Amino acid sequence: MIVKEFLNKAVSRRGFLGSAGAGAAGLAAAGLGFQQADAAPLEPPANWDYEADVVVIGYGGAGTCAAIEAAEAGASVLAIEKTTTAGGNTSHSGGIVYLGGGTPLQKMHGFDDTPENMYNYLVAQMGPTADKNRIQIYSEQSVGHYDWLTQRGVVFGQKFWEGKVVQPPSEEGGLSFSGNEANSPYSEIAIPMPRGHMPAGAGAQVYAPLKATADKLPIQTIYNTQGERLVVDKSGAVVGIQVRSGIPDPGVPNATPVALSGEIFVKANKGVILTTGGFQFNPEMLAQYAPWYLSAFPLGGPSQVDDGSGIKMGQSVGAALYDLSFASPWKFVYAPGEMCKCILVDQVGARFVGESRYGQDVGDLIIRRNGGVAWQIFDTPTYEAAKAAGGFFSEPVGTADTVEELAASINVDPAILANTVSFYNEQAKQGKDPLFLKHEEFLTPLETGPFLAFDFGVSTGIAFITLGGLRCTENAEVINSFGEIIPGLYSAGKTAPGINPEYYVSGSAVGDGTFWGRAAGRAAAAAASR
Amino acid sequence: MIVKEFLNKAVSRRGFLGSAGAGAAGLAAAGLGFQQADAAPLEPPANWDYEADVVVIGYGGAGTCAAIEAAEAGASVLAIEKTTTAGGNTSHSGGIVYLGGGTPLQKMHGFDDTPENMYNYLVAQMGPTADKNRIQIYSEQSVGHYDWLTQRGVVFGQKFWEGKVVQPPSEEGGLSFSGNEANSPYSEIAIPMPRGHMPAGAGAQVYAPLKATADKLPIQTIYNTQGERLVVDKSGAVVGIQVRSGIPDPGVPNATPVALSGEIFVKANKGVILTTGGFQFNPEMLAQYAPWYLSAFPLGGPSQVDDGSGIKMGQSVGAALYDLSFASPWKFVYAPGEMCKCILVDQVGARFVGESRYGQDVGDLIIRRNGGVAWQIFDTPTYEAAKAAGGFFSEPVGTADTVEELAASINVDPAILANTVSFYNEQAKQGKDPLFLKHEEFLTPLETGPFLAFDFGVSTGIAFITLGGLRCTENAEVINSFGEIIPGLYSAGKTAPGINPEYYVSGSAVGDGTFWGRAAGRAAAAAASR
Repeated sequence: MIVKEFLNKAVSRRGFLGSAGAGAAGLAAAGLGFQQADAAPLEPPANWDYEADVVVIGYGGAGTCAAIEAAEAGASVLAIEKTTTAGGNTSHSGGIVYLGGGTPLQKMHGFDDTPENMYNYLVAQMGPTADKNRIQIYSEQSVGHYDWLTQRGVVFGQKFWEGKVVQPPSEEGGLSFSGNEANSPYSEIAIPMPRGHMPAGAGAQVYAPLKATADKLPIQTIYNTQGERLVVDKSGAVVGIQVRSGIPDPGVPNATPVALSGEIFVKANKGVILTTGGFQFNPEMLAQYAPWYLSAFPLGGPSQVDDGSGIKMGQSVGAALYDLSFASPWKFVYAPGEMCKCILVDQVGARFVGESRYGQDVGDLIIRRNGGVAWQIFDTPTYEAAKAAGGFFSEPVGTADTVEELAASINVDPAILANTVSFYNEQAKQGKDPLFLKHEEFLTPLETGPFLAFDFGVSTGIAFITLGGLRCTENAEVINSFGEIIPGLYSAGKTAPGINPEYYVSGSAVGDGTFWGRAAGRAAAAAASR
Repeated sequence: MIVKEFLNKAVSRRGFLGSAGAGAAGLAAAGLGFQQADAAPLEPPANWDYEADVVVIGYGGAGTCAAIEAAEAGASVLAIEKTTTAGGNTSHSGGIVYLGGGTPLQKMHGFDDTPENMYNYLVAQMGPTADKNRIQIYSEQSVGHYDWLTQRGVVFGQKFWEGKVVQPPSEEGGLSFSGNEANSPYSEIAIPMPRGHMPAGAGAQVYAPLKATADKLPIQTIYNTQGERLVVDKSGAVVGIQVRSGIPDPGVPNATPVALSGEIFVKANKGVILTTGGFQFNPEMLAQYAPWYLSAFPLGGPSQVDDGSGIKMGQSVGAALYDLSFASPWKFVYAPGEMCKCILVDQVGARFVGESRYGQDVGDLIIRRNGGVAWQIFDTPTYEAAKAAGGFFSEPVGTADTVEELAASINVDPAILANTVSFYNEQAKQGKDPLFLKHEEFLTPLETGPFLAFDFGVSTGIAFITLGGLRCTENAEVINSFGEIIPGLYSAGKTAPGINPEYYVSGSAVGDGTFWGRAAGRAAAAAASR
């Protein structure tokens, strides 16, 4: 999901918004007339302004797949998007889709994956709060989802990228190991299989074919319009939504012109589908639910999305939640893999993670365990090798002939750092890392000075998305805290994580969002009209 | 909050219930006619069975304090309790009440605590999701709460217990350091002050005077009756509750006889106060929200309480939540303090915590970081010293002349264990522990064999309570996800943590529950009648 360019963009945007205050960004938002949704559900109004069988709120990857399936099943569909652009996070993402169980692309490269093998990895990886039933369905239907996507025009790059890559180059795409599949202990639990499927052109080329598919279907779209409050009837069923439009006609091609501005009531005969993403761009929700990540950079599609509005609307009608404290804060050591020959140390000079682990493991420990602090330590040969392989280096914060001397430059305990390096070296010479199980490929002793230290803490950039959200059935029906379905309400994408409420591997957001978006569209279309 | 006897009881109970299945315990529950609440809120019925200004659900420490304040303010009060006994967790607890800011007992022993000093410690300790405003109010009004409790008959033991005690002896009570106050880094953030206030007779003697106070007030009590669904009017206000009674007359002294069994509708003119504790005795909720702790022992008052029903009823009307994944799983190294001279190592043989840290830190790392594994390592002199001081030891799982040999008996990496011990010894000789900041008092090198290893993992007993619950205002009014007050609904105790939604120190549950229970009672009594 992350490419360097994208990360840089996220960093710039944060910087911009951070400094803008009530300036340009603030005014732009105000000009659109948006305000934070701030109230409980409403009773049905005397008059509805719009009506459709299925109303989709948030027209990104999940919402578009929901709209496609609902429209293909014969339902009338109205999709409402807050920004002037469809695509959301999917079109801005790195474009990896997490698929497996024996896809044609896996088979082409001789990877004999099975749904069971994929399930075993995901259950071990995704943490104990993830829904095993939904992981099973996702694994079993993953080849089918691959087919569905490719039949609608998604073209995955055909090359396999061996070893440690954050992701394949944007211009080529292809297949890669996009999680911890090859890292112990996962490599002993399930046969390591690459499951990151990426088209050339990254996320834009996952989304463009889906949008083209949707555009051929009778799907009404309204842009510049924000979901605010659900409308609930006396039985507790969701029968519509009150939205707020900023600009009557934003001039988006194929969009339904909105004659009204301000509060608009939209009737949903069969269901409302919430696909508004996570809440990483809502600092107030972050402060409440996931304050650890306020020091990191929110990552996502056009700014102002991922505002938590879908999650809050779900909560307002009693939806059960996955913990909102979970996020995926990425800090990748590799790119190229040779970078993993460094060791990472914490605020006192001790190692805290296997350096070849997936970026979420590294980033989360830096933020939640180390208070934001981490340092990369190289000796001269590993530094030169990483540089020769194309590794990117900022200026070192310290260079010294001995490890003890290096400690002073990064304010860690010299005795701890010396012990950390010497114990690591002893073990690396035997080809093992019993402390953190770093992949043996990168176990090179750090023995030849000068030694170099690089800042790898949160201030050097850790991007994140939130993971928690609404709990749903396997049909993407939102459930309440008693496990009962809330009639008329569906959700998918980061508003309602299917397989990844607690942990994430690259491609799981786009994979999960498009997959359960489709499920939501089918289920809503099949519901009885109210 | 924990004494050894209590822990043993919890362990036995779990064993009993675990083996009973559909046997004695199952039948007893079935005989009472209870079922898990399993539905959304109800509309007002045509006829109400009971009516009061303030209806309290769950008659433990928080609920009783709520009832007292509401009755003293002139409201009619009906308190409904699921079991046949009042007192809940408070009366079964170790009896520590976390109070400070300059209480008479602190002053008597020369501890010059202030509300600001107490606030500084609690903000640093309680984690970033805790509500700083409520911590401030709790700190500022802590002396007042001490006075309120003692004026109503709570008699705190007068002795100060120096050093590391899990808690004072039950027969004496007294003042002790009940959290991490004296541990670095907290000891640098705030002047360490003992704030654990405990009466002789433990929790029973916190609760008995409160119950005696309540019994003199016009508070109706109904036992054997379980809150099931909130009743909500058209405006979204909570106007009552549907409860279910098992035994028409359980024969509890002073209890209001219940003429009905089955579904009973109780009208609350001013408000419903939910004080049903946490959810550690609800395995289904644990599996959903906090699966890590299924391996530990749920701790609490009479079994069947802490069933999560209050949290679920709150959720059903859109209450905002603190993360339900947080719990306080206690594993105390000390008792006596000399036990802290051991080191604790994880599943590969590395240290992972300062051994003098509060039990929640140790227990949570064992469960969530180490997969349940931990070992205590002593050398012969530290073992003998701990034994002489009254330390309790089971059989060692390994004894060996060298640390490397000891490693085999506990299946950890011998090189890691040897490095762990030798680095610890080097630093301990200099009187420091730069890795984990263990208190210097316990830094004794482990050098003289035979070395001994004791199992300290989750299977040797880690007791826990859940921490997460409903979010409230400073007046204990439950709020929804938009920050709005849900009219007519109040909560306190572990159903709605005030200062400890994420972290816990001993005494904070009884202190927090009684304090915000009082706030709930006052606020509900002051509300306009509906």
